[in-house]
Amino acid sequence: MKAAVLHAYKEPLRIEEVDISPPRRGEVLIRVKATGLCHSDVNVFEGKTPVPPPVVAGHEIAGVVEQVGEGVTRVRPGDRVISAFIHPCGTCRNCVSGHENLCETFSSVRLKGIMPDGSSRLSMGGKEIRAFLGGGFAEEAVVGENALTKIPEGMELERLAVLGCAGLTGYGAVLAGKVEPGETVAVIGVGGVGLSTIQVLRSAGAGRIIAVGTKKWKLERAMELGATDTVNSKEEDPVKALKEMTGGGPDVVVEAGGNEETIRMALDAVRIGGRVVLVGLPPSSAMIPLKVASIVRGGITVVGNYGARPRVDMPRLMELIKQGKYDPSALVTGRFKLEEINEAVKLLEEGEAIRSLIVP
Amino acid sequence: MKAAVLHAYKEPLRIEEVDISPPRRGEVLIRVKATGLCHSDVNVFEGKTPVPPPVVAGHEIAGVVEQVGEGVTRVRPGDRVISAFIHPCGTCRNCVSGHENLCETFSSVRLKGIMPDGSSRLSMGGKEIRAFLGGGFAEEAVVGENALTKIPEGMELERLAVLGCAGLTGYGAVLAGKVEPGETVAVIGVGGVGLSTIQVLRSAGAGRIIAVGTKKWKLERAMELGATDTVNSKEEDPVKALKEMTGGGPDVVVEAGGNEETIRMALDAVRIGGRVVLVGLPPSSAMIPLKVASIVRGGITVVGNYGARPRVDMPRLMELIKQGKYDPSALVTGRFKLEEINEAVKLLEEGEAIRSLIVP
Repeated sequence: MKAAVLHAYKEPLRIEEVDISPPRRGEVLIRVKATGLCHSDVNVFEGKTPVPPPVVAGHEIAGVVEQVGEGVTRVRPGDRVISAFIHPCGTCRNCVSGHENLCETFSSVRLKGIMPDGSSRLSMGGKEIRAFLGGGFAEEAVVGENALTKIPEGMELERLAVLGCAGLTGYGAVLAGKVEPGETVAVIGVGGVGLSTIQVLRSAGAGRIIAVGTKKWKLERAMELGATDTVNSKEEDPVKALKEMTGGGPDVVVEAGGNEETIRMALDAVRIGGRVVLVGLPPSSAMIPLKVASIVRGGITVVGNYGARPRVDMPRLMELIKQGKYDPSALVTGRFKLEEINEAVKLLEEGEAIRSLIVP
Repeated sequence: MKAAVLHAYKEPLRIEEVDISPPRRGEVLIRVKATGLCHSDVNVFEGKTPVPPPVVAGHEIAGVVEQVGEGVTRVRPGDRVISAFIHPCGTCRNCVSGHENLCETFSSVRLKGIMPDGSSRLSMGGKEIRAFLGGGFAEEAVVGENALTKIPEGMELERLAVLGCAGLTGYGAVLAGKVEPGETVAVIGVGGVGLSTIQVLRSAGAGRIIAVGTKKWKLERAMELGATDTVNSKEEDPVKALKEMTGGGPDVVVEAGGNEETIRMALDAVRIGGRVVLVGLPPSSAMIPLKVASIVRGGITVVGNYGARPRVDMPRLMELIKQGKYDPSALVTGRFKLEEINEAVKLLEEGEAIRSLIVP
């Protein structure tokens, strides 16, 4: 099958023939229909999240089940599915205690690009290559069955790819923030995660929802999706603006920017006693200097949050879509053939895309 | 009256005559019986928590009410009281929503060494000088009435001074950690706060309580007070030890060390999905580099916590003392006259004291 392969960090991807082996116990082979392109993929391409090349990335996957491994019960061939970027084992302590998004088994392999058994289903010329969180930039992909959600009849499949990471992460951010009706929430970053967070916040009954970003067109989209106010951090001091607009800072700040500047902004802007939900991912090894005394004296709770539970939360998110409360299409800004993926990467790096769908 | 005055950072304190003016509305004048010496006081003396000199520190105060200001209803002259380091206004949003430890009014003045009305009750030669969180290193002190708790008949007053900061902060740490019965908790730092936390954890039904420190005699005291295990971080790699002892890290880590090394230790040691409670105070301006990606991917909650509620939690802590579940005497390692305060400071800096009582 064809796949977009990274051979060395910072080099363009190459479309090549890759061998994919059948799904093993608990695994599912999917024919890919579309995969969303996310900043985390670009972090791999740039070596900031170092997964050893050759590697196939792509973790927001929509497709059709082609073959199931031994013991798979949740899906069968022909099912239309989306795959979350989290592939829970279902048996570790976190999985059985309602926190499968923090699956300990998956945590130990996810940045290595291998399956929990230590091997990969992808190879080139007889030599194993890696797949980052699914390897969706390809014609086919093998994922753990617990990552999958069946798509109800009548729902268009392709655009739902963006639920796999952006949607799930936005949903998880609202859950982690324990947002109460009427509370004021700032969302820093208006990419796929930020725009998902804003939509779920609106459903959750948040009061003011303040979108913070740098691109006018994205902030406008945020307003369409539920934001009540915006702050353009290129045009004004965002911390000062947030403090003034809210009389001391938002109750909750969701940080979806994932860089040093936006993380500091979140911690500086939140009110005394407030919560900061960190969902944006800086490079793995980045050490970000934070003013810890302010966190202590301010009684600030910082919640690191990683996605949400594929088997519990993804169906809930699907329900929001059915009720017209979450629109995945609003995140999709482009559609590219697999052969055009390097163009899509460039657009994302320039901040001119939210989610591009890569279609094999 | 006599007070221990700091005239310049890093210089010894001088015992001098200081004028104290009568308590105003909502304030209380206390005749000091004993005040505990805390690292936060030393941070002021060293300029790490810069409160402009001349300043009188001391915030763990036990004494007798001498005079009350207008509108004071909670205490009257002759009452034996302790004062918390937090002086809640009682009317701001945090005070009225059950979070008076994060009082917004108090937050805005506490590091300036003034009362909420912008003035100080202390002066020398007709010129106002500052008081840091009460100014207990003196014969008399003026504090807000909401900081005070009456001491029941029959309880010895002096040693209860340590409740004002160490006790209250330890109590608050356990509350903030939402520790469930049987959970494994590591406490980093075995000074006054750490030893208080350990005692309250034992009451709260924690499972294993692992004390982490560098001094053998303090770790032994931790074991006497409820710790089930100890790690001497000078003798072994504490993160590795904690991970191994617990099979992946403690459920909760309480950080009471307040320096870059111990804060990192706490974040590195906690299990995936665990909670880190930060109560140790690094210098105000210290920027501490943290690996944010690990907080996000690990789904770690970092709870900055500042003390506890004087009017709600201090009576509960008093109840634990009555029932023999918390022993303030275990924190007291020395007793010094006001004139000897510089010796007590030296001992604390060398790590050879837990709490020294300063007695005017």
